[in-house]
Amino acid sequence: MEISLKNELIANLAWYTTIVVLKMMLMSTLTSVYRLRTSAFANEEDARTFGSTTKGKPFVYTNAAVERVRRCHLNDIENIIPFVIIGFLYVLTEPAIDTAIFHFQLFAGCRIAHMFCYLISIPQPSRFVFYAAGYFATLSMAFRILTALY
Amino acid sequence: MEISLKNELIANLAWYTTIVVLKMMLMSTLTSVYRLRTSAFANEEDARTFGSTTKGKPFVYTNAAVERVRRCHLNDIENIIPFVIIGFLYVLTEPAIDTAIFHFQLFAGCRIAHMFCYLISIPQPSRFVFYAAGYFATLSMAFRILTALY
Amino acid sequence: MEISLKNELIANLAWYTTIVVLKMMLMSTLTSVYRLRTSAFANEEDARTFGSTTKGKPFVYTNAAVERVRRCHLNDIENIIPFVIIGFLYVLTEPAIDTAIFHFQLFAGCRIAHMFCYLISIPQPSRFVFYAAGYFATLSMAFRILTALY
Repeated sequence: MEISLKNELIANLAWYTTIVVLKMMLMSTLTSVYRLRTSAFANEEDARTFGSTTKGKPFVYTNAAVERVRRCHLNDIENIIPFVIIGFLYVLTEPAIDTAIFHFQLFAGCRIAHMFCYLISIPQPSRFVFYAAGYFATLSMAFRILTALY
Repeated sequence: MEISLKNELIANLAWYTTIVVLKMMLMSTLTSVYRLRTSAFANEEDARTFGSTTKGKPFVYTNAAVERVRRCHLNDIENIIPFVIIGFLYVLTEPAIDTAIFHFQLFAGCRIAHMFCYLISIPQPSRFVFYAAGYFATLSMAFRILTALY
Repeated sequence: MEISLKNELIANLAWYTTIVVLKMMLMSTLTSVYRLRTSAFANEEDARTFGSTTKGKPFVYTNAAVERVRRCHLNDIENIIPFVIIGFLYVLTEPAIDTAIFHFQLFAGCRIAHMFCYLISIPQPSRFVFYAAGYFATLSMAFRILTALY
């Protein structure tokens, strides 16, 4: 099997991987935006340069909205990176293209929905359902790798 | 060199990578189980849906057992992802198959032992020893990549 | 395209990836050094074995210097891992070698500078500038992947 973007499996993996990694990187920018908006910084030197000038405010403190974005970011790291690694090995097992695309689309869709659920605080179990569906997409690909190798 | 599961180096890398990534993903599930068992959630909407109904309890609080699982998970992220990346590049240097398998097995074994040490709070330095041995397995592979390229 | 260290694109990706991953792994060791130096451990069993013997000290507490190293480590995870994933897919688009090396060197240089800014608490916006330049290097590569595939 050739590792090339001309290979349909690799091209699809590359597309959805780039989408979910960009989505994960978006959380960094969102964290910065929320930190600036609320003047809630993690380092004193950040607060000195970027903070609002209100007197008597502690330099470093946490803000609930910032922490929520950060939890969403960490959840992405915990789920998207395993997907990328397992996804690459899964493609090496040469699955049917439709099955592969189904896994990639399910995962990418769930992670985007998960982000909205997290940031808008939509009542559970919606966020849990999207988290679990993405998790099982990765598990399903891992299962195929192990059975292909065993 | 062909990137294929028929290549013995790639097949072994794929096997041990899948094992350690699944082990890392297990920490997500363990965190959920501990959160449900102790009703210690990070978000108010989680506590409302999944929390026990005891009155007068704060919605969001931390629990020592949950935080322990989370530290173990973060340690996995900090160590397993470098292993996977360095492991793939290491395989491209076409090492002897026995040496490669030794590195992969040492790493995987150490991370599994590390998890048990962390979760059961086994006295130090046992956890440190497993952490360090896994760390040095990755360093050793990185060293080979750099010398192969230099 | 052949995935081999004889391919100049792959060789350069492998070199800079190994450098930045080793730099990220250095943060683990730095955290351990700071924890030992300040006796600030996250687990009781660590404090019992590795902690200084001062009486009346709480077993587990946080230290500002340790937390700073940990934030720097987490920022590495949030930025270096996307770079590695996107970098690999970027190489599959067969960019001009000089453009590719420019992206890799820019990213690696920025992350090393970012670490020094963080650990020595250099006034902002220096750290932000290095963070943003590395971030845009990854974004630029992601953009090329998406346009190559679309």
